[in-house]
Amino acid sequence: MAIKNDLFLKALQGKTVDRPPVWMMRQAGRYLPEFMEIRKKYDFFTRCRTPELASEITVQPIRRFGMDAAILFSDILVIPQAMNIEVQMKPDFGPYLPHPIRSKKEVNAVIVPDIEDTLGYVMEAIKMTKEKLKDEIPLIGFAGSPWTILCYCVQGQGSKSFDKAKEFCFTQPEAAHTLLQKITDTTIAYLKAKVQAGVNAVQVFDSWGGMLSPEDYETYSWRYIQQIIDALKNEAPVIVFGKGCWFALRTMGASGAAALGVDWTCSPQNARYLSGGTITLQGNFDPARLFSPPAEIKKRVTQMINEFGKDKYIVNLGHGILPNVPLENARAFIDAVKEYSE
Amino acid sequence: MAIKNDLFLKALQGKTVDRPPVWMMRQAGRYLPEFMEIRKKYDFFTRCRTPELASEITVQPIRRFGMDAAILFSDILVIPQAMNIEVQMKPDFGPYLPHPIRSKKEVNAVIVPDIEDTLGYVMEAIKMTKEKLKDEIPLIGFAGSPWTILCYCVQGQGSKSFDKAKEFCFTQPEAAHTLLQKITDTTIAYLKAKVQAGVNAVQVFDSWGGMLSPEDYETYSWRYIQQIIDALKNEAPVIVFGKGCWFALRTMGASGAAALGVDWTCSPQNARYLSGGTITLQGNFDPARLFSPPAEIKKRVTQMINEFGKDKYIVNLGHGILPNVPLENARAFIDAVKEYSE
Repeated sequence: MAIKNDLFLKALQGKTVDRPPVWMMRQAGRYLPEFMEIRKKYDFFTRCRTPELASEITVQPIRRFGMDAAILFSDILVIPQAMNIEVQMKPDFGPYLPHPIRSKKEVNAVIVPDIEDTLGYVMEAIKMTKEKLKDEIPLIGFAGSPWTILCYCVQGQGSKSFDKAKEFCFTQPEAAHTLLQKITDTTIAYLKAKVQAGVNAVQVFDSWGGMLSPEDYETYSWRYIQQIIDALKNEAPVIVFGKGCWFALRTMGASGAAALGVDWTCSPQNARYLSGGTITLQGNFDPARLFSPPAEIKKRVTQMINEFGKDKYIVNLGHGILPNVPLENARAFIDAVKEYSE
Repeated sequence: MAIKNDLFLKALQGKTVDRPPVWMMRQAGRYLPEFMEIRKKYDFFTRCRTPELASEITVQPIRRFGMDAAILFSDILVIPQAMNIEVQMKPDFGPYLPHPIRSKKEVNAVIVPDIEDTLGYVMEAIKMTKEKLKDEIPLIGFAGSPWTILCYCVQGQGSKSFDKAKEFCFTQPEAAHTLLQKITDTTIAYLKAKVQAGVNAVQVFDSWGGMLSPEDYETYSWRYIQQIIDALKNEAPVIVFGKGCWFALRTMGASGAAALGVDWTCSPQNARYLSGGTITLQGNFDPARLFSPPAEIKKRVTQMINEFGKDKYIVNLGHGILPNVPLENARAFIDAVKEYSE
């Protein structure tokens, strides 16, 4: 079935559009009062695992703001969970993995699971969301990059430096690569199943790639993302978002990915230059700039579009929307794009 | 008095050297057992405020490893403390400011203090350290950048995104600039007093500059650092270290700073290119790479020197040394530089 609003898919194909499409990372999130209502009643993983809830949460921001793409409500840590690694989501703390992986033996105990058995609930949520969206706009599925997933599996929680994750890689590189390959294999099967279930594009979040030197990025992160792109690109457009990964944009631009997400430290000019100038880019409004007054947000969004250019461009934030952003400010961001004309 | 080992000062002047100088950010730190001995007995601010302790801690790594420069043991948060903002150092938590600054009224209550009255203990520590160093090697003094200090003053603690600090700037820009100017004025007087007391160079740490977009970096961070450089450059060489600030290296290179610190996401080639190719650079070994075996550390350090080039270069880490780095690994890092020959 054709998607009625195909701005997002056209941008991924590099086609000319009247205005760029817009969505926001973490758009189904805590800044929305209707999300907070559901959050009061159900804990994090119940929301992820219950297709009725996940699909409802996914469409909430679309109903309110009318973005040009929806992204399935879920979490990157459903992957280690499916791989038999315990993941808890602690209130006011974030992810907590009580048994972090720090040895070859622990890596060997990690399984590459059957996706339908372990993550079938995600596919149900996709089908239910597709019904709700009625082919009005495309649906994005996502996964964490293998490196980013390893960071949590080894560190056991969030971190400013992920020093334990890096120590593990640099002292036990063989075990690290075994773990990364298991995560990669699981992720490829997972994303293929998502496409099968109906998502129109997939995004890989390399949230912690920017913690690595360019050489270590190639070794511990990029080569696994490239495997994912190679396995998926003929099934659906692949977007790669590497936070802080400006130094890898050239490699990413030649990878077969359909688009690259960039953060706000990379100016539009730098992003175009570093990525080779031909690939579709997505980003990169500083999420904290949504605290500016609505009129200023609109001015800045228009300027951002002018600098990226309206084609081969998807308007987004440079990272997830912050929980305490006022609704009218989020609306100003979306509306500025819809009102855009050259 | 001439400093006997002048490798560091020569590198800051851009002069030819036989091998580059080496020191490590946070070299007087928790990876040293002799530091941990003192840490057991005295709390954080006692160590900062007692010249006997601060000078002893400063020379500990020199005694053990023989770096080419010492850096005075202190903390960037002594500045807000002197400005009458309460700063606590909580064990297992880090800095905590119980009364964060969030309004114009609170900004107006912040004082620009008399340096001798409030920070005289730092000058005493410098004099005592100079006596201990006996002009063998130069002594570096430091301060946080005004933006980085504002981050703590407004956020009230460390943070991954410093969202509250940025919200303050983007919703109350006038109050933010008033606060930044007060911090700048204090910092300039502080660093001048340090030079007067005997430090041979100063380093400005912009630890959180990389949280800002290039445009906001210019507005909220760089213009204040430039004021510091302008005020100090004729008194002592100024090193600017901006973590994650690759996008500002061109501006920094033309600022009058004597050297620029770079982190490990910036390859030597990129760092030379982005900074304009003529200024002395300092960095940029990934602190987590000190977990590699000593032989591999040595190989990587040699390669790093070859890529930066031995002249106009100061070997360092790309951020502070991590607490759990083995002593023999730290030694391998220093020794690799001392053993370097083209």
